[in-house]
Amino acid sequence: MSSPRSSPQIYLIFAMESDPGFLAALEEAKSGFEEGGVPIGGCLVSKDGKILGRGRNMRVQKGSATLHGEISTLENTGRLPASAYEGATMYTTLSPCDMCTGACIMYRIARVVIGENKTFLGGEEYLKQRGIEVVVLENKECQGLMEKFIEQKPDIWYEDIGLVEP
Amino acid sequence: MSSPRSSPQIYLIFAMESDPGFLAALEEAKSGFEEGGVPIGGCLVSKDGKILGRGRNMRVQKGSATLHGEISTLENTGRLPASAYEGATMYTTLSPCDMCTGACIMYRIARVVIGENKTFLGGEEYLKQRGIEVVVLENKECQGLMEKFIEQKPDIWYEDIGLVEP
Ligand SMILES: [Ca+2]
Ligand SMILES: [Ca+2]
Ligand SMILES: [Zn+2]
Ligand SMILES: [Zn+2]
Repeated sequence: MSSPRSSPQIYLIFAMESDPGFLAALEEAKSGFEEGGVPIGGCLVSKDGKILGRGRNMRVQKGSATLHGEISTLENTGRLPASAYEGATMYTTLSPCDMCTGACIMYRIARVVIGENKTFLGGEEYLKQRGIEVVVLENKECQGLMEKFIEQKPDIWYEDIGLVEP
Repeated sequence: MSSPRSSPQIYLIFAMESDPGFLAALEEAKSGFEEGGVPIGGCLVSKDGKILGRGRNMRVQKGSATLHGEISTLENTGRLPASAYEGATMYTTLSPCDMCTGACIMYRIARVVIGENKTFLGGEEYLKQRGIEVVVLENKECQGLMEKFIEQKPDIWYEDIGLVEP
């Protein structure tokens, strides 16, 4: 019998644009865009692949200062014991802001899969520092939604991320 | 005329248990306790001393996974342009968790005044790293509310901060 050390396990972790969690997040972002809202969606998937909840940014639709895509997803998921978040993946169409980064850390979510980070780069490095796996899909559809929204409604976008409009 | 360098300005920044923002946050925490909820309250005060909003943890009352004291406060404050948060103070009865820490950072709040950090120590160091002033009041009433709650309902408290119950 060979020593366990001589046959290292190789773990390959895939996150793809065909993941049900990503497709749900993208649908949420598109719905948000159609509603005139900030087009960012999220979806929380358990360790064993079950969709626990999904949501989208509700700044415009609900006049909300805190319902970003990921917070909305966690809120729609509802109250769960901490064990439910173990090994879970948060899909989000856009790189998470500091608030949503902190929410993923607080719930000890294992992995954050991000549609794109070209229109906004959030707390990806801090997520990694806190032991959370980060995957960026570089999805063009997510990027296109945000580019259109920022061009059409820059004031709402800057408000959403707490930036004084340049 | 003396050089400006020879007469340095001294800025003394006070945060006290008699601040209207702290008293409002404490009232919120007490109301939360009376409702059977997690007894944590918050209050956001503008640079010029106006109360912009207040709120309390709503996990029990609304079945919410995200309405911690500070998130609830920001949500009740409603949509504001980024300029409204400039120089603002977030009062909270308890040291902020990673999510609420991130929310204060995202909105570039200037100062976080904390009732107590004995029952839970949150993201105080990270707030300072991100340039936010932190003041801890070591208020015994805030601490007493949390100690009673944690003793009576440990399961809800651990759920609220995403911890698997020890
Ligand atoms: Ca692609
Ligand atoms: Ca005291
Ligand atoms: Zn966010
Ligand atoms: Zn919190």
